[in-house]
Amino acid sequence: MNKLLVFQSDFGREEGTVSQMYGVALGVDPSLRIHEITHEITPYDIWEASYRLFQTIGSWPAETVFVSVVDPGVGSDRKSVVVRTDSGQLIVTPDNGSLTHSAAKFGIEAVREIDETVNRAPDSEDSHTFHGRDVYGYTGARLASGIINFKDVGSLMQPEELILLPLMEPRGSSGAVDGVIDIHDVHYGNIWTNIPTILARENGMAPGEMIEVVIENDGVEAYRESIPYSRFFSAVPVGGDVLYDNELLYLALSVNQGSFAEVHNIGYGSGWTISLRKNS
Amino acid sequence: MNKLLVFQSDFGREEGTVSQMYGVALGVDPSLRIHEITHEITPYDIWEASYRLFQTIGSWPAETVFVSVVDPGVGSDRKSVVVRTDSGQLIVTPDNGSLTHSAAKFGIEAVREIDETVNRAPDSEDSHTFHGRDVYGYTGARLASGIINFKDVGSLMQPEELILLPLMEPRGSSGAVDGVIDIHDVHYGNIWTNIPTILARENGMAPGEMIEVVIENDGVEAYRESIPYSRFFSAVPVGGDVLYDNELLYLALSVNQGSFAEVHNIGYGSGWTISLRKNS
Amino acid sequence: MNKLLVFQSDFGREEGTVSQMYGVALGVDPSLRIHEITHEITPYDIWEASYRLFQTIGSWPAETVFVSVVDPGVGSDRKSVVVRTDSGQLIVTPDNGSLTHSAAKFGIEAVREIDETVNRAPDSEDSHTFHGRDVYGYTGARLASGIINFKDVGSLMQPEELILLPLMEPRGSSGAVDGVIDIHDVHYGNIWTNIPTILARENGMAPGEMIEVVIENDGVEAYRESIPYSRFFSAVPVGGDVLYDNELLYLALSVNQGSFAEVHNIGYGSGWTISLRKNS
Repeated sequence: MNKLLVFQSDFGREEGTVSQMYGVALGVDPSLRIHEITHEITPYDIWEASYRLFQTIGSWPAETVFVSVVDPGVGSDRKSVVVRTDSGQLIVTPDNGSLTHSAAKFGIEAVREIDETVNRAPDSEDSHTFHGRDVYGYTGARLASGIINFKDVGSLMQPEELILLPLMEPRGSSGAVDGVIDIHDVHYGNIWTNIPTILARENGMAPGEMIEVVIENDGVEAYRESIPYSRFFSAVPVGGDVLYDNELLYLALSVNQGSFAEVHNIGYGSGWTISLRKNS
Repeated sequence: MNKLLVFQSDFGREEGTVSQMYGVALGVDPSLRIHEITHEITPYDIWEASYRLFQTIGSWPAETVFVSVVDPGVGSDRKSVVVRTDSGQLIVTPDNGSLTHSAAKFGIEAVREIDETVNRAPDSEDSHTFHGRDVYGYTGARLASGIINFKDVGSLMQPEELILLPLMEPRGSSGAVDGVIDIHDVHYGNIWTNIPTILARENGMAPGEMIEVVIENDGVEAYRESIPYSRFFSAVPVGGDVLYDNELLYLALSVNQGSFAEVHNIGYGSGWTISLRKNS
Repeated sequence: MNKLLVFQSDFGREEGTVSQMYGVALGVDPSLRIHEITHEITPYDIWEASYRLFQTIGSWPAETVFVSVVDPGVGSDRKSVVVRTDSGQLIVTPDNGSLTHSAAKFGIEAVREIDETVNRAPDSEDSHTFHGRDVYGYTGARLASGIINFKDVGSLMQPEELILLPLMEPRGSSGAVDGVIDIHDVHYGNIWTNIPTILARENGMAPGEMIEVVIENDGVEAYRESIPYSRFFSAVPVGGDVLYDNELLYLALSVNQGSFAEVHNIGYGSGWTISLRKNS
């Protein structure tokens, strides 16, 4: 029991909401070690919440309890769940697609639907718009502190019953790979694809080469350049485009000390396709 | 002694100021559990500081020590105080109105003026513009760690001597309630009134009904619509207006997945009055 | 061993990067007490990183381990180092100038180059763009937890071998002092000089006097006013200019409840010189 409890939300830190979650959790057990992924998820963006969970949880120890609250349907009849990943971590979240990437990349070992008649902060029955504090944070705190176990959460569900968003599969052929822009590394403006580094290697692409990159938005060309594939940003001049392996070992694009997303006006999601081809 | 120490300020997190407060506090006792309400209070906005304290402290355990530093008068002759609330929490703050809402809603059991000749970080006598670090953070840390007790802070004051800002009282009559816009839920743009849910219930208003809402700014009409009163946001379409009970159990207004404050150009404060009337 | 580990970076908190650093560090030792200076350093701004370290570390206890990652050269051949300051703190950072102010103000007792063949998170060899997680955070965590000691970091270097940015020296004469604008207190827009309060005192300048302030940008006059030198902001009306001693005991300029940097369009760096002269 490492007592690690990690929050994620779209609540922001400008006011008291996140602090209320902390307070309720520390009221359960003041020795909990509460940390966070981010509270700056774009409001209501379940896709981004799903990606940030996937991006982050692999760096945390087994037994860590995550609570992710991007919950536009709060108070409606969407389910609340806790999942245990194949790596032994727990994720507490509304069942609205937030588990899409983690289910695909880490695997879900078991799912339980939260029984809110027993897993709800005392005296919170009249509150209907803040399950992050009243249900998710409170339940996460009781799991991380060992007061309850996974089996106390509620009834088992089948992993297949979880709501998941559609994911695109990357494809490779000799000297070429194709996929989509999965997300932005928003602080720097780098763009991250869903193409694993290893798929590029298997198809004969490696750092040191020049690569032709074509990006389309719903089939309309948005970017076409031959650029260096490098192990690090400063291999190109400041302001230059570079293809690199990101920290999760997927192909990614950067402007050295600039924003690729802004300079080239590139978005993300299933409509943003990318093709990479080795120059011959 | 739960060793919980919770900071609030208008310092922002872009640079080192908050970290200096942490460092001084952890120099007092490295095992302190320091958390925060927010450091994004609008600079110098004592009203907002007061509201965020009220919004948050009820979610934290008894014995928690809060330090709130929105302090435009730093270095002048404004007093520094520690109050003990009726619920057994301590709040360390300049005496400038920051305790307005907490005094009204939670009750102040006792007040002591900080004697800065003994409650000041060593070697900080030449610093006059950072009492957050030198006096408030340091004193809060010594209280939370148990090195000093409440009686060691300084002389008792009468709660009536505290500087408090004027608060408006909500009013109810059959099928109607009136009050003011107390604050914004800034991250989402929801607007929160000072009208308790229970006052609406006592006057016959409940979720499921249509309610006519009129908002005036210094007597000039700013908004007039009949909108649904619902338990949750997604009861109306995305972009629709909805009246709901907020997490503190006060009446509030939201645009589903949008900003009520921006869409309808609504502010907050005693000049922003609101009347709600059940449709007949 | 106080187990304090303090991070600084230009990563922002909008997404998962900082959380990955936390996760790897807490995987080393879940009882580490991780805090932060800021993650909002202007991207790639090594000067600002250097200043924020200097601004902050003096408030933290001896034995604290700092990890500063502003690292535009990540993956290239820039060195990675750990320094021990004269005050017994450790700083883990790329050797790119981030230690400039700390070396000048606190003194460097010893420097070791990180041997990345042994000080690198397990299974991170294929990652080349996130040394903050893989090398700096991991090594900082192992130092703060006591798993390794300073001597286990790698070979000794001479402090003179460190890359340092050029610093300007302030000068004083009777009734006058000269220096540069070293940094902004960005959240409030105050501007901070490199002129110690004590140098002003030694040359006969003290709070209560009127001071003529001239600021030039590369030799072109940007500001000239006689303004009060005061112990606190509220000595002048809201909107008024004031000279004061900042929390680090350097001369600084503020607009009371406003932004001096914005109102007067003032930058920072070695091109922004400032002269202060006592009115006679």
